[in-house]
Amino acid sequence: MAMIDVGQLLKRMTMEEKVGQLMQLATPFFKGASDRGKITGPMERMNISEQMITNTGSVLGAWGAKEIKQIQQQHLEESRLGIPLLFMSDVVHGYRTIFPVPLAIGCSWDVTLVEKSAAIAAKEAAVSGIHVTFAPMVDLVRDPRWGRVMESTGEDPYLNGIFAKAQVNGFQGDDLTTNKESVASCVKHFAAYGAPEGGRDYNTVNMSERELRESYLPAYQAALEAGCEMVMTAFNTVDGIPATGNKRLMRDLLRDEWGFNGVLISDWGAVKELIPHGVAVGEQEAAKLALEAGVDIEMMTTTFINHIQLLIENGEIDARLLDEAVIRILELKEKLGLFVDPYRGADEKREQEVLRCQEHLQTAEELAGKSCVLLKNEAVLPLKREQKIALIGPFADSNDILGPWSFVGDKEDAITVKDGMLQKIQPDQLLVAKGMGVESGKKADLEAAMEKAREADVIVLALGEASEMSGEAGSRSNIKLPAIQLELIDRIRELGKPIVSVLFNGRPLDVAGLVEKSDAILEAWYPGSEGGAAIASLLYGDTNPSGKLTMSFPYSVGQIPVYYNHYHTGRPKDAPDAQIRYVSQYLDIPNEPRYPFGYGLSYTTYSYGGLQLSSTQLQAGEKLVINVTVTNTGQVAGEEIVQLYIQDKVGQVVRPKKELKRFESVYLTPGESKTLTFSITEEDLRYHHADLSYRSDVGEFIVFVGPNSKEGLEDTFTFVK
Amino acid sequence: MAMIDVGQLLKRMTMEEKVGQLMQLATPFFKGASDRGKITGPMERMNISEQMITNTGSVLGAWGAKEIKQIQQQHLEESRLGIPLLFMSDVVHGYRTIFPVPLAIGCSWDVTLVEKSAAIAAKEAAVSGIHVTFAPMVDLVRDPRWGRVMESTGEDPYLNGIFAKAQVNGFQGDDLTTNKESVASCVKHFAAYGAPEGGRDYNTVNMSERELRESYLPAYQAALEAGCEMVMTAFNTVDGIPATGNKRLMRDLLRDEWGFNGVLISDWGAVKELIPHGVAVGEQEAAKLALEAGVDIEMMTTTFINHIQLLIENGEIDARLLDEAVIRILELKEKLGLFVDPYRGADEKREQEVLRCQEHLQTAEELAGKSCVLLKNEAVLPLKREQKIALIGPFADSNDILGPWSFVGDKEDAITVKDGMLQKIQPDQLLVAKGMGVESGKKADLEAAMEKAREADVIVLALGEASEMSGEAGSRSNIKLPAIQLELIDRIRELGKPIVSVLFNGRPLDVAGLVEKSDAILEAWYPGSEGGAAIASLLYGDTNPSGKLTMSFPYSVGQIPVYYNHYHTGRPKDAPDAQIRYVSQYLDIPNEPRYPFGYGLSYTTYSYGGLQLSSTQLQAGEKLVINVTVTNTGQVAGEEIVQLYIQDKVGQVVRPKKELKRFESVYLTPGESKTLTFSITEEDLRYHHADLSYRSDVGEFIVFVGPNSKEGLEDTFTFVK
Repeated sequence: MAMIDVGQLLKRMTMEEKVGQLMQLATPFFKGASDRGKITGPMERMNISEQMITNTGSVLGAWGAKEIKQIQQQHLEESRLGIPLLFMSDVVHGYRTIFPVPLAIGCSWDVTLVEKSAAIAAKEAAVSGIHVTFAPMVDLVRDPRWGRVMESTGEDPYLNGIFAKAQVNGFQGDDLTTNKESVASCVKHFAAYGAPEGGRDYNTVNMSERELRESYLPAYQAALEAGCEMVMTAFNTVDGIPATGNKRLMRDLLRDEWGFNGVLISDWGAVKELIPHGVAVGEQEAAKLALEAGVDIEMMTTTFINHIQLLIENGEIDARLLDEAVIRILELKEKLGLFVDPYRGADEKREQEVLRCQEHLQTAEELAGKSCVLLKNEAVLPLKREQKIALIGPFADSNDILGPWSFVGDKEDAITVKDGMLQKIQPDQLLVAKGMGVESGKKADLEAAMEKAREADVIVLALGEASEMSGEAGSRSNIKLPAIQLELIDRIRELGKPIVSVLFNGRPLDVAGLVEKSDAILEAWYPGSEGGAAIASLLYGDTNPSGKLTMSFPYSVGQIPVYYNHYHTGRPKDAPDAQIRYVSQYLDIPNEPRYPFGYGLSYTTYSYGGLQLSSTQLQAGEKLVINVTVTNTGQVAGEEIVQLYIQDKVGQVVRPKKELKRFESVYLTPGESKTLTFSITEEDLRYHHADLSYRSDVGEFIVFVGPNSKEGLEDTFTFVK
Repeated sequence: MAMIDVGQLLKRMTMEEKVGQLMQLATPFFKGASDRGKITGPMERMNISEQMITNTGSVLGAWGAKEIKQIQQQHLEESRLGIPLLFMSDVVHGYRTIFPVPLAIGCSWDVTLVEKSAAIAAKEAAVSGIHVTFAPMVDLVRDPRWGRVMESTGEDPYLNGIFAKAQVNGFQGDDLTTNKESVASCVKHFAAYGAPEGGRDYNTVNMSERELRESYLPAYQAALEAGCEMVMTAFNTVDGIPATGNKRLMRDLLRDEWGFNGVLISDWGAVKELIPHGVAVGEQEAAKLALEAGVDIEMMTTTFINHIQLLIENGEIDARLLDEAVIRILELKEKLGLFVDPYRGADEKREQEVLRCQEHLQTAEELAGKSCVLLKNEAVLPLKREQKIALIGPFADSNDILGPWSFVGDKEDAITVKDGMLQKIQPDQLLVAKGMGVESGKKADLEAAMEKAREADVIVLALGEASEMSGEAGSRSNIKLPAIQLELIDRIRELGKPIVSVLFNGRPLDVAGLVEKSDAILEAWYPGSEGGAAIASLLYGDTNPSGKLTMSFPYSVGQIPVYYNHYHTGRPKDAPDAQIRYVSQYLDIPNEPRYPFGYGLSYTTYSYGGLQLSSTQLQAGEKLVINVTVTNTGQVAGEEIVQLYIQDKVGQVVRPKKELKRFESVYLTPGESKTLTFSITEEDLRYHHADLSYRSDVGEFIVFVGPNSKEGLEDTFTFVK
């Protein structure tokens, strides 16, 4: 395979050509784009010249082999040195085949299937001409007010790290150069974007560096360990300095300490946002801060292209910083094989074959089934095929179930709950009515729904948030269902019939007002293209629910943040000598969330027994083997996600009440028992000490093995050195 | 005056006697105490021997000259070396004369009066035998869920620092040795106790050291600059290490960097709480951590007395740490004159003269009047003496208006709203009914109240939280008025008559459901002994409201934390080029609080004009003079709190949107104008940089002068070096 010498190429480049590589523009700027010239909003004020476009290094948000090839072809015709464009897009949870949103797929705990979903997304994107996906998003999240929690796999650093690796492996495959049906992965948002104050998007993030390293950084690091090619900066500040201009975070930690030598891209407009952030006087200083911090590509603002040359000429920044950035970008292009084949995987014929092919849709349905979490079930589920069902609510026949970040997914293709139900039962057994919209409704529609409900044996309510109520800039201060939907359930409840609520939403909700009135609740999140089919299979018991939450459901918004791996206080509510008042608690609600991390029901039951540790001691360099026997004590086969947590009883700093360390799914037929074997080593006991050193301490530990973060068996061991 | 040589005394002390000085026990342990032997709860398990009691250095929570003298006398009879006990108590907002709670007195912005209130509290406490008060509490607060916000003066570091100084000066007077009617002050809780996660008391605190220094530490530092003799540790962790065992915080920062050489005391039980916190294996390690961190006195647990001797004998801690602690304690006793006169100010006759004397009550009434904040007034206030008033609600005739931390204050002495109203109008003009309790009620009471309301011209609703709904361990996840009180206002509103709501509460509330239905709202907090009189004067316009909030009232609990001095984001909602969706905002509520910091109405109106800066530049070493003219444009005289804020337009780290730098109260008769002069210097522009250095940067600043943190005039200047 022909290789180019990137260093030689760099020497031939003019300053303008170099700086151009650092710019990323959206498709409307490019010749060959179908939306060429559709430049609106802030784009209009960018003042982009034709020459700048010619020099541009990468393209944001192009979709489709035909168009991407056109843009690339036009570009190469004008590029003096024939440097191909890189095409990057947000392929977050599927391309045309839309998988459940990341918070949902987290709840599958199915690492293999999540990797497969990423590989499918990569294949569909790659044949459509895309080279890089802005995924995975691995921001640790603890605040359901924030709209982007739906993009994260949840509140656990270890689990997020595992899913980060799985997604990177899925997107990138074994070899980006030879496998043209893979895409490079860009992990985001570095760092700690998931902790905006008040859950308000883009807001200040504040925490100690120790907490940053302990809880927030591990998932990014896991993605990089998996070979993730790119990193995207975060919009937020990290200890007072916006990530995009944060030299300590990007240059010192990410590049020098972690050794990341890939391409670092700003988030949309984030370089210029150093100005409203109040850390740069103007564009020139913004450019300087970002480049010095380690940013290679500026997305959708022009401070680099307008100022880097002058900054270098004035001796204000080192010209080597520019060259290094250009080399990283050219090396990525080289790695993707673009100098040999600038069109890479883009192939209209393959698009026809691959996009939404049967295998992909099947995987989407399988993952959707595994992502739903059964929160409550008082002997109403599974439904029986002979029952007459009233399917009511704004999501009864809604195709707004793909969720945010599914640009290429077509809602028209989505299988709604109604569609899914009709795959299970005859039309005359299913009465469908909207009843209410998501946030408003008509009395006549409600009455029509009541009529249908009266005729039914069981009422399935399909409720939730419209997809724009979460996602980027989709922060809500109120995390309940919209009031009108709570009124709907109040009315339906008057009928005294069994109610099954199926929820479509992008965040953990406060389910007060819903949970008391529902006999069962199935959390379906935004389940993607095949969602309705997966849900119907779960409702009828053709699939047994196995999903478990990866983000706690708070009791109410006033309990935020609530997460299972919180730290010990000096006055724990559950201490044996706790006084009634003077313990860490609320006067009006429990400390515990409504549904904890790891929680989810099944149509069968499991018992845990025989917890055995290979030793009461763990020596450094050895491993502790933990056995547990899980038995299906119910009537149907099922898959149980068995979770292993530890508690470090005493640390130099306060340690979490529990920390997830291992998990495994086990499939059990009724009556069947299996013994699972886990092992942990000294490495699993490490944490960040006050001096930021990452190491373990000798001492006592508790091991918990159980069905969720709250329940289970426990035993202790001592770590000795 | 006779002085003792503390060093010589130390040499004569046995190890047991030394360690005894480090113990603080509550009165039930001591001979001579009226509650001697009433040892319950965790105290029972303390296993205190008589010898330990004899060696004990200080007493917690004793009240009254007679009893304290008895305890001291008995103690001296048994103490081998005749070392007097130190008596310490929580005299937080008054002793017998109860002033408004600290969050209320903050709203007075009246530094002189606050200092006077502390001096009065000190005098009453000192003649009752108390030597040290555990006040001021100066924890910065941003989360109204936390019950102890009522103990803080609010959300501003600068203002909290000013009140910290005023209180220390008031408590301590000019000379603790010669003025026996003063008490030593113990600032608390070091550090950052005001930022518990989720607003849940005692919960984890996490922030960067830079944020700690920038926002949370200044008020403690101000107290120490005023000469505060003691510091109390906080219950919380500071970057993972409980404050009470946090060497970096206590030894390195407080003692070494700040040079604090006074007595450092743990909060109640906090040394032993290092065990449940999970940073100490047992009591011995807890003792070692706390002593090494710099704690001198262990309050109400016995790890020091049971383990320090052994730790020293085993060479695990340096014996000098013990000696240093003992010397600090003995020196405080010496400074308080206790070796000369162990009874110091304790004097039953003076108690009779001083406690609740007329001057003290007058000051309490004056401060209560200045602490109330008029939040809304739609032409209903002031009331007219000819109107017939229905005074309704759980606080209509309640004496639960002293607030938490008023142990010696007697509710029976409190002037209720009814009492106060009857000082203004004839009994036949006032119809009083409870209507509802605070959290529950009877239908008959409601109907009785409705009957009275029907007869009235104006309805005054006295609503609020019972005092135990805030204070220590008084966290609420819901910050609305209890639902039953919102029902009360709904019913009353049906009558269509003007409604004035007077609120009694220990935190900023979400007033949704109340504000739309009230024509006026007067926030009275817990106004103390003379509360009802002060409120009646405000309602009838004999006093013109002048209080302004020092803690933001959130729009709802889902907006927390919300505070005026928040940092710039990169996507501000109010930017001229802001996109509709992609800005930092909630979908469902504004970003702004319901009522901002500095906000409060008056019965008159003021206009601001003539803002003039002495220069467009400020040079280091010089001062910038800022003039503004305020005019009373209304019909009655009033006092306006004029506030000056700055904004540092560009910093090395993100800077607050506004920062309070100066304020001044001005009294204006109708039509009168006065020109106020403020000046600022380079020192006012300093902040903590990324490397923690505290310094200023050259550049542009905005000056705002106005009636609150949201409104006002503005101009700019440039700081040059």
